[in-house]
Amino acid sequence: MSTQPSKELETFENPKPDRDYEIRFEAPEFTCLCPKTGQPDFATLRIRYVPDERCVELKSLKLYLWSFRDEGHFHEAVANRILDDLVKATRPRKMSLEADFYVRGGIHTVIEAAYP
Amino acid sequence: MSTQPSKELETFENPKPDRDYEIRFEAPEFTCLCPKTGQPDFATLRIRYVPDERCVELKSLKLYLWSFRDEGHFHEAVANRILDDLVKATRPRKMSLEADFYVRGGIHTVIEAAYP
Amino acid sequence: MSTQPSKELETFENPKPDRDYEIRFEAPEFTCLCPKTGQPDFATLRIRYVPDERCVELKSLKLYLWSFRDEGHFHEAVANRILDDLVKATRPRKMSLEADFYVRGGIHTVIEAAYP
Amino acid sequence: MSTQPSKELETFENPKPDRDYEIRFEAPEFTCLCPKTGQPDFATLRIRYVPDERCVELKSLKLYLWSFRDEGHFHEAVANRILDDLVKATRPRKMSLEADFYVRGGIHTVIEAAYP
Amino acid sequence: MSTQPSKELETFENPKPDRDYEIRFEAPEFTCLCPKTGQPDFATLRIRYVPDERCVELKSLKLYLWSFRDEGHFHEAVANRILDDLVKATRPRKMSLEADFYVRGGIHTVIEAAYP
Amino acid sequence: MSTQPSKELETFENPKPDRDYEIRFEAPEFTCLCPKTGQPDFATLRIRYVPDERCVELKSLKLYLWSFRDEGHFHEAVANRILDDLVKATRPRKMSLEADFYVRGGIHTVIEAAYP
Amino acid sequence: MSTQPSKELETFENPKPDRDYEIRFEAPEFTCLCPKTGQPDFATLRIRYVPDERCVELKSLKLYLWSFRDEGHFHEAVANRILDDLVKATRPRKMSLEADFYVRGGIHTVIEAAYP
Amino acid sequence: MSTQPSKELETFENPKPDRDYEIRFEAPEFTCLCPKTGQPDFATLRIRYVPDERCVELKSLKLYLWSFRDEGHFHEAVANRILDDLVKATRPRKMSLEADFYVRGGIHTVIEAAYP
Amino acid sequence: MSTQPSKELETFENPKPDRDYEIRFEAPEFTCLCPKTGQPDFATLRIRYVPDERCVELKSLKLYLWSFRDEGHFHEAVANRILDDLVKATRPRKMSLEADFYVRGGIHTVIEAAYP
Amino acid sequence: MSTQPSKELETFENPKPDRDYEIRFEAPEFTCLCPKTGQPDFATLRIRYVPDERCVELKSLKLYLWSFRDEGHFHEAVANRILDDLVKATRPRKMSLEADFYVRGGIHTVIEAAYP
Repeated sequence: MSTQPSKELETFENPKPDRDYEIRFEAPEFTCLCPKTGQPDFATLRIRYVPDERCVELKSLKLYLWSFRDEGHFHEAVANRILDDLVKATRPRKMSLEADFYVRGGIHTVIEAAYP
Repeated sequence: MSTQPSKELETFENPKPDRDYEIRFEAPEFTCLCPKTGQPDFATLRIRYVPDERCVELKSLKLYLWSFRDEGHFHEAVANRILDDLVKATRPRKMSLEADFYVRGGIHTVIEAAYP
Repeated sequence: MSTQPSKELETFENPKPDRDYEIRFEAPEFTCLCPKTGQPDFATLRIRYVPDERCVELKSLKLYLWSFRDEGHFHEAVANRILDDLVKATRPRKMSLEADFYVRGGIHTVIEAAYP
Repeated sequence: MSTQPSKELETFENPKPDRDYEIRFEAPEFTCLCPKTGQPDFATLRIRYVPDERCVELKSLKLYLWSFRDEGHFHEAVANRILDDLVKATRPRKMSLEADFYVRGGIHTVIEAAYP
Repeated sequence: MSTQPSKELETFENPKPDRDYEIRFEAPEFTCLCPKTGQPDFATLRIRYVPDERCVELKSLKLYLWSFRDEGHFHEAVANRILDDLVKATRPRKMSLEADFYVRGGIHTVIEAAYP
Repeated sequence: MSTQPSKELETFENPKPDRDYEIRFEAPEFTCLCPKTGQPDFATLRIRYVPDERCVELKSLKLYLWSFRDEGHFHEAVANRILDDLVKATRPRKMSLEADFYVRGGIHTVIEAAYP
Repeated sequence: MSTQPSKELETFENPKPDRDYEIRFEAPEFTCLCPKTGQPDFATLRIRYVPDERCVELKSLKLYLWSFRDEGHFHEAVANRILDDLVKATRPRKMSLEADFYVRGGIHTVIEAAYP
Repeated sequence: MSTQPSKELETFENPKPDRDYEIRFEAPEFTCLCPKTGQPDFATLRIRYVPDERCVELKSLKLYLWSFRDEGHFHEAVANRILDDLVKATRPRKMSLEADFYVRGGIHTVIEAAYP
Repeated sequence: MSTQPSKELETFENPKPDRDYEIRFEAPEFTCLCPKTGQPDFATLRIRYVPDERCVELKSLKLYLWSFRDEGHFHEAVANRILDDLVKATRPRKMSLEADFYVRGGIHTVIEAAYP
Repeated sequence: MSTQPSKELETFENPKPDRDYEIRFEAPEFTCLCPKTGQPDFATLRIRYVPDERCVELKSLKLYLWSFRDEGHFHEAVANRILDDLVKATRPRKMSLEADFYVRGGIHTVIEAAYP
């Protein structure tokens, strides 16, 4: 596996597909750019999912999140985009994502989306 | 967009209208006046909503909250008023507002209202 | 309105009677006497209610709580009494009260009652 | 009432039997002995109940908990025993007990039981 | 009972089999190895179960957890494995396990599984 | 010893007068009245002292603090008064008192005084 | 005393001038305007002083802080200004002020100044 | 070494006598009896010392603290007694002890003593 | 002032040069790259200084910190570099910087440097 | 650099040798064995040092701490040993180490040592 930022999420076989169990990640090192001003945005991402046949590989997830570093994304759009990418890559039984952004204009914003 | 306080809330198109997802704001910089005494009141506002076709624009929300600075409002009334204004501007699938006021008379007051 | 302790709770018209919304008070300055020993008891009261036609006036609530200062009341009885008085004064859609007493005999006691 | 440890729990008449309300106690000063090694065990007990006709008297509860000080009891058994004794003494509408023991062997144990 | 690491979980008779009650363990001293790199992993395990006829013996649980110290296990697999072993040894009415791993690659991972 | 509020502080002989050691009390149940408005004030008192020949008796301290319940005192004066009374009663090597009052007018006040 | 915002700080006679003791205020309800943009700024002020002959009156302090509500002030300047005004009004033995401003541009700013 | 409560503190040779370093213990499981009422008291003990030639053995310390379980001791006396015993057993370069007792009469007491 | 990342730190005249007072910034949104692996690093920076003739302008500080986003820097070097740049730009009476980096390899690193 | 546990600590040249600055590490993943019982011990290590000519390399530090995993060490000895090894490898201007061990026998132990 490379160590370059990449939108390609790698997965591995779920070691316990006959049980509904939950995997949770907290990733406080997410950053992208504001599409209007070009200024950096920062967020902590919290992901929870019940895997079906595939689990997301941890290092691959790190490289995937890194890949947003130089891209412009709106808060609401990027949270839904990451959820969609993770759903597409792992086809989970269910998944949710919480994107907890740093204060802008004196207001703290959190976006929470779920599949299905 | 101007940078003057304004009751006009601007919105933008929901980038993911086919999913029910939640947007949460915490705004600790709300102040208005007591209609009886004219003295300042302070609150932290917590807003959560599931957008339908429109999302509220963050800077516009800041200017909207600022617009209460020199107005007199009772606790119970202003919390319901802000919820109503936000509902009218965004027509959300659902929305709630929590207004957490500073201590007055040794008592800490919170108002929580929801739509629908 | 006087500034003497008083069991008379004043109310005002609910500014938003067509919505079920919640008002919460936290009052950490409640004290009464133990009816057996005459010694002071202290509690934090937490009140939540959904108003119907009337809301309780904040200063009046402060004076009402003050009125217990020189009276003897058992923990279980005073919590239910305050809830009853507030229900009678405001006729809320629902209301609950939590009385969180300071440690006595190495034991920390909380009473929680609800209407209806 | 004596101030000696005693398994006799005293009760008093519920001042508000027509309402389901909850009484909660937190008692951080519980200690008994390990029946295998004779070494002391320590726990914080958290009791919640909805009284029916009788409430447990606070000082009596303190003396009751003290009565375990020199007795050997297993964690699982003593938690259920105390719940049973309190249920028998007060005949509550419902009751639960959480016994939160100090770390043993690097493991922190909590037992939680409920009636009915 | 030996004091060597062992996959053999010892149990004892449930002292209160006629009641559904919960036993919770928090074990912050779990470590095993990464099967890919051989490097140590660390986790806090949180186990909750409702015993049926047998309870797991605390010291035996400690030795069982110790037995993973020199073994390679993936996060998702080891959490399910420990749950399976505990279910097999105690045949509980229900059980859940949360494995809360230390940060790797800037991401904090928790696995939570339940039986049945 | 009586169980009535009393300004008479009882003391006992310091069991270790040949060592400078510190005794600290935290008393969250202090209340007196505002001399201007007659309304109740509340504070947590924190006392630290190095005893010389006499230590203050704990129950006597409780009754002493209770004795302020129906008296009017300004914040700055009552903190210094209590320190003076305790110094006079125990003649300590050193002593300090912190009176941490509840919020009034949106402002939280603490008075800290020391002897000598 | 009026209840209008006012730069006139009222004082009263120090009840214990023969002792160096400290008075601390925490005032979380300070707001003024940014002189460049006109937008509101918010801060918590923490004041500590050792009074000499005069103490600052609490309600007067509240009205004084309120008087900045519609004025433009830079962070560094307003913190020093308030300290200077308080020093001038009370001539304390020593005084310090900490102004803890809300996040702007992703950066949290605190100014701390002391006299002498 | 026995596993019975014992006032005999065992020690071992300091592995690094040429360096001044500190050893800290926090023991939350201390209990003794009130000499006046016979009722149990509970405390958390915090011990810090710089060893000279001998260090106190951890299990022996546990048995030593256990030995107070059925003895009557005043707060101030027992804290100084334990410090004295530990100083006598280990002859440290310096040592301090903090005994943090549970609330009695609404007052939380801490005793802190140091050698030399 | 531009809104592009820039190493040029802007300053303004200290409004109170005749007083030694402290300005503190906490900036949780710092990120640069690891010079060995090219992977992103994240840190919270805490800066404290006593200004002499010039203060650092807040927006300029934000743009300055942003300018490290695409540059490779070792932890120890970048902390000292930022301190040096800030010292050079403002010529403070004294200044310190704490760079609190996210966990790498299971280890949390903080660098703290001061001038002079 | 290998990724095997190793007592060989690698260092690199201090990038700012003309300044006394501090580097702090917190490593919560330390484990070794009890030399008496062979059972695992766990600790969080906190290291602070002012480098002279050499800094310790972070990955090398991780491998060094890992190297204790299968070795028996007493608490007091291992804390001093690690400090000695780090001092020998980096020749710092000053260094301290705090080893914060998990609860054993109901007692929480911390060892803190410093050089010089």
